[in-house]
Amino acid sequence: MEQPYKSVETKKTEFVDVPIRVRYADTDMMGIVYYGTYPVYFEIGRSEYMRTKGFTYKEFEDMGYHLVVVGMEIKYYNTATYDDLLIVKARISELQSRGMTFHYKIYKDENLVVEGKTKHICVNSSKKTVVIPSHLVHILKDVISK
Amino acid sequence: MEQPYKSVETKKTEFVDVPIRVRYADTDMMGIVYYGTYPVYFEIGRSEYMRTKGFTYKEFEDMGYHLVVVGMEIKYYNTATYDDLLIVKARISELQSRGMTFHYKIYKDENLVVEGKTKHICVNSSKKTVVIPSHLVHILKDVISK
Amino acid sequence: MEQPYKSVETKKTEFVDVPIRVRYADTDMMGIVYYGTYPVYFEIGRSEYMRTKGFTYKEFEDMGYHLVVVGMEIKYYNTATYDDLLIVKARISELQSRGMTFHYKIYKDENLVVEGKTKHICVNSSKKTVVIPSHLVHILKDVISK
Amino acid sequence: MEQPYKSVETKKTEFVDVPIRVRYADTDMMGIVYYGTYPVYFEIGRSEYMRTKGFTYKEFEDMGYHLVVVGMEIKYYNTATYDDLLIVKARISELQSRGMTFHYKIYKDENLVVEGKTKHICVNSSKKTVVIPSHLVHILKDVISK
Repeated sequence: MEQPYKSVETKKTEFVDVPIRVRYADTDMMGIVYYGTYPVYFEIGRSEYMRTKGFTYKEFEDMGYHLVVVGMEIKYYNTATYDDLLIVKARISELQSRGMTFHYKIYKDENLVVEGKTKHICVNSSKKTVVIPSHLVHILKDVISK
Repeated sequence: MEQPYKSVETKKTEFVDVPIRVRYADTDMMGIVYYGTYPVYFEIGRSEYMRTKGFTYKEFEDMGYHLVVVGMEIKYYNTATYDDLLIVKARISELQSRGMTFHYKIYKDENLVVEGKTKHICVNSSKKTVVIPSHLVHILKDVISK
Repeated sequence: MEQPYKSVETKKTEFVDVPIRVRYADTDMMGIVYYGTYPVYFEIGRSEYMRTKGFTYKEFEDMGYHLVVVGMEIKYYNTATYDDLLIVKARISELQSRGMTFHYKIYKDENLVVEGKTKHICVNSSKKTVVIPSHLVHILKDVISK
Repeated sequence: MEQPYKSVETKKTEFVDVPIRVRYADTDMMGIVYYGTYPVYFEIGRSEYMRTKGFTYKEFEDMGYHLVVVGMEIKYYNTATYDDLLIVKARISELQSRGMTFHYKIYKDENLVVEGKTKHICVNSSKKTVVIPSHLVHILKDVISK
């Protein structure tokens, strides 16, 4: 994938853990979590990651910005099923001036179920790619340099 | 449910038939279509109903209106599963000045799988309940009186 | 809807409260929770209701039983949106020998967002309607008579 | 990703085109198709690919096999929205003795919206990785060598 932004940070943040209970709706007729459900779990992971860091993605959107997904990779190692209590581990693995990459690991007890990444660019309300607002970058830099 | 609008038509429209192929994602671990998938099939039914009648719900939203759902009823008679080719039959069963009721029957071959209704009110871009734009009512009246 | 089972209890259980954080995936382009998302919230409500009462729906399925949905009713009073923290209140409003009705109220702060019911029949692994296993009925009766 | 199977074919099949109308349910509050919806579109693509080639994934499962997803990659180039008529182009880009890789391109008119791959392994009803049944391989080889 082309890199529409320059890396400004190389340090990585720590994972934030988010528990998720698998819904019946999340399963398919194979009796396991549908492979297309994991991007939703990723979304919860990064949403809660941001809340933990002291701002919410909702506030970010209320300010007129969006983090549009431009890439995703998932590797499926094990299956999960209804009522499993999963732990979604989420962190920022790369921070750039105009975007970032989130990294996720989903565990069921000690077993890695799924690992993945999502790449995002920051856009404003006119859907133009923009530099991440300094307010947010400062929070993230603090987070990353801690 | 309370009736927030007055009925202006009593005649009913004919059903429009929409074929839907069941996706793997639509199933759950019971091996059947998840009960919460049918409202999505209803949405496709009324979307295609409107397209058949000569306007699309998208155009309607582009004009600044929405048909907000205020009520739904579903009866589940039979199950459906992956790759089934279902027929969603949709029609308007009641038309009022500020809203309407859609009626759906979903068949798998000769068997009725699900029957349901959704009740809608018309709102403008400020989310206020408004009279359905006359343009649309005229189309629907024509449809109904045919 | 026809009544395929006889009522054996008239007392109602208390609501169990389940907090649900609205996911971005749950919203639609109107900016609110998609109307077809609420049946999923209901499912979580009854799942956690049963867990609170000392057995899980998963255990119930592992015993070879399913609670198939045969009917649903929803009234939509208010909208919810991304990141809202909703409270799903769930209880059994009717218990019969071969099925039950769940009743749900979903609140956002003090505001009722949605109210609904789902009617279920108990089937065995051959998909035949059966009497709810006495083990489960005893738990539920205790629950209801408390 | 590790390669749990040996490649037996290097030729690539032609794309099969599948039209998909975007559902309202597929959108999110950003007004576009939710990023986690595309894996569902991929599923439809490979399902219809197989139907076009003369066997269905349903028949494959009825024979006791599953194609479990072990990896996925997506690049998002453009957005799509409600009511868009997308074309999902799907083909097998790699065929191995125990698995395969599907390749997808999703277009809206002339614009590439999304491109992706899913990697699958063949498992039997005991969830053990197995060689793809020769019946299916023959069909696929024919397909590929054409």
